Amino acid sequence: MNKPQVATVSPVDESTESHEVQSIFEDIMQTKGIDFVPRFWRVLATNPVQLKLVWNSLKELMHPESSGRDSSLSPLSREMIALAVSATNGCSYCVNSHTAAMRKLGADDETLGEVLAIAGLFNMTNALADGYQVEPDVLPPVD
Amino acid sequence: MNKPQVATVSPVDESTESHEVQSIFEDIMQTKGIDFVPRFWRVLATNPVQLKLVWNSLKELMHPESSGRDSSLSPLSREMIALAVSATNGCSYCVNSHTAAMRKLGADDETLGEVLAIAGLFNMTNALADGYQVEPDVLPPVD
Amino acid sequence: MNKPQVATVSPVDESTESHEVQSIFEDIMQTKGIDFVPRFWRVLATNPVQLKLVWNSLKELMHPESSGRDSSLSPLSREMIALAVSATNGCSYCVNSHTAAMRKLGADDETLGEVLAIAGLFNMTNALADGYQVEPDVLPPVD
Amino acid sequence: MNKPQVATVSPVDESTESHEVQSIFEDIMQTKGIDFVPRFWRVLATNPVQLKLVWNSLKELMHPESSGRDSSLSPLSREMIALAVSATNGCSYCVNSHTAAMRKLGADDETLGEVLAIAGLFNMTNALADGYQVEPDVLPPVD
Amino acid sequence: MNKPQVATVSPVDESTESHEVQSIFEDIMQTKGIDFVPRFWRVLATNPVQLKLVWNSLKELMHPESSGRDSSLSPLSREMIALAVSATNGCSYCVNSHTAAMRKLGADDETLGEVLAIAGLFNMTNALADGYQVEPDVLPPVD
Amino acid sequence: MNKPQVATVSPVDESTESHEVQSIFEDIMQTKGIDFVPRFWRVLATNPVQLKLVWNSLKELMHPESSGRDSSLSPLSREMIALAVSATNGCSYCVNSHTAAMRKLGADDETLGEVLAIAGLFNMTNALADGYQVEPDVLPPVD
Repeated sequence: MNKPQVATVSPVDESTESHEVQSIFEDIMQTKGIDFVPRFWRVLATNPVQLKLVWNSLKELMHPESSGRDSSLSPLSREMIALAVSATNGCSYCVNSHTAAMRKLGADDETLGEVLAIAGLFNMTNALADGYQVEPDVLPPVD
Repeated sequence: MNKPQVATVSPVDESTESHEVQSIFEDIMQTKGIDFVPRFWRVLATNPVQLKLVWNSLKELMHPESSGRDSSLSPLSREMIALAVSATNGCSYCVNSHTAAMRKLGADDETLGEVLAIAGLFNMTNALADGYQVEPDVLPPVD
Repeated sequence: MNKPQVATVSPVDESTESHEVQSIFEDIMQTKGIDFVPRFWRVLATNPVQLKLVWNSLKELMHPESSGRDSSLSPLSREMIALAVSATNGCSYCVNSHTAAMRKLGADDETLGEVLAIAGLFNMTNALADGYQVEPDVLPPVD
Repeated sequence: MNKPQVATVSPVDESTESHEVQSIFEDIMQTKGIDFVPRFWRVLATNPVQLKLVWNSLKELMHPESSGRDSSLSPLSREMIALAVSATNGCSYCVNSHTAAMRKLGADDETLGEVLAIAGLFNMTNALADGYQVEPDVLPPVD
Repeated sequence: MNKPQVATVSPVDESTESHEVQSIFEDIMQTKGIDFVPRFWRVLATNPVQLKLVWNSLKELMHPESSGRDSSLSPLSREMIALAVSATNGCSYCVNSHTAAMRKLGADDETLGEVLAIAGLFNMTNALADGYQVEPDVLPPVD
Repeated sequence: MNKPQVATVSPVDESTESHEVQSIFEDIMQTKGIDFVPRFWRVLATNPVQLKLVWNSLKELMHPESSGRDSSLSPLSREMIALAVSATNGCSYCVNSHTAAMRKLGADDETLGEVLAIAGLFNMTNALADGYQVEPDVLPPVD
């Protein structure tokens, strides 16, 4: 009767013998400054090709300093976008993970509240604009 | 054969005789510093109750200075969240509108690109976390 | 440069020679009291199996009188649900179609507005409840 | 291993010392005719600005009698729309909450079933119309 | 505090006295080659009209051999589509159910991983294409 | 009045002077066996970092032969998943693009119809399972 969410595959153990996976696990912990491998990555590791691709993308976009790239967005702004998207999609793991990341970057309940209030607001206006099929005011005068 | 999107109701004219609607239209133009009433609001005005509620919420959350409130987020951060949500939902009107707002606040193609790349990334990880039913690493140690 | 939405398959002509499809087309027009076959059905007819299944379901659920079944919902209530779902999903064809159906059943701009305002509201609260991962107050004390 | 959903913030206690929040909590219980504050509102209260905005909108749209407004929709119709949207978005808290509200208004399993069957049906047709990119039959002959 | 997901209606017992429902339950077990009635169908059975419609559609589309129809897709391809859609919508019951079905058909972790990696990838590109409002390259040169 | 979808940024020209972008454009045309650069990639190229990341992921997952990897899925199966996800999200560009890809791989209207019928079916059952909050039958007996 009591059945919480459990991953549909067995997460790969942190002490995996695969050198390829082990090396990505270490990069994840070092880049994020944490001392464990989040379950998300241990689950993706059941298919190493996908582990590598997703980590490469996330590392580049969320940790631009790792490749010496300048970003127009602050680390907190990046996590805000992650939380807003995850709230829109209703993804449990992701909401928990990005909320924790925002708190680690110093966000308090009020900041969390503002992000979610704005995400909620635009989920409402999106439904209204689509529900009325409102056409754009002007086409983008691009550049 | 050539049928672009057209609103399902007749937008209320800017020169409406309804004082209630007229007054909200003026508040919209003044608060946003624009000289026309975006079609979205002219469509909502077909049901004045909803026009008032949506505008009150949007004004308070996106223009906190109007009520003397301090916000933890910059105007650009707020629009980034709006764009990320609108991209996730695939709302045409909203993507156009928030892209224009970001440009007005100084965002260039690269900043737009970063916001959308991050929004895209988390739409991917959301589908992966949900598709594997990954359970949260730890429950929030709230406060 | 000017590229509106066009179906990805050639809709089946109303005067198709397939007896199976022809007979469903006639049932659609008669059940709905219209004198043309909406493009949606002409598109589905490119795969007759699916035309039959979708029409059977829609006929039974939206036109319960056709099978002598009593429904707890009025025709207008059923169309309201259809519009609310279509606005949530941002489906152009569907929003247009169900808005037209509601007008045919007598709905004016204000009723349309109420339905969309409520649909919009709950898209907002859904994002908030999911974005905070609010747990249910009580489990359903079913029956 | 056993990790059900838990809110990412500490819900505000019903006996909060904030007068502003306390007064909204009382309005919620009185307007809804219940003797406790649902967790959703206690969570939103962690950011009082958002608590006020969301409650104002929900009160006006779902309890129009509170402002002396006539609504075209019955209380049950309004909750049906709420359930249909929540089912479409897959929001746990919301599905539980609106199902309970429908039952309180007298809905039995069959009525619940009709609402969900119709919501399910249009999630199917939405995917089909979008998946084939079916263009609208006619543009709205608006008024 | 510990509140996992529980259906909002009481599932109909496998040993129901309704002949109509009993007969569908038996068809489900026989067609799927299983010896119990999955909870999804026992829940739908609370509204027999919907049980019949949904089962008819699923039986025809997922078990085409039952009506002697040839399908262009293999059973595994059909389940892959089901899993990809369920991951996109974040439906827990559905992800678990279709993952189990894929495993029964012989899929290992790597195949599961490929399906989810591809589903994740296109959730990303969908958000990007919509977030930039990219117009189609060419309209379908249909047939 | 006639406003079809237009990208919110100016797509990068095929004859761009950026060597980095030019080289990816050539890889796209060669890997896909086409003689033009689809607008999606020309739009992403406005932010070269994202162009590279998205192309790397798509190339690896959709063209595994390019890295000498064996895939459990056929090219057609991979495009079916792409179409099912795009139909679920209602992404115009993506539906058009993946429908074209399926046709190039030999799919006819009936195969397209089966994929979309199945995608539609599971959008319906997803809404039903979530709308009733059906709990999984059994937790995954993983491996």
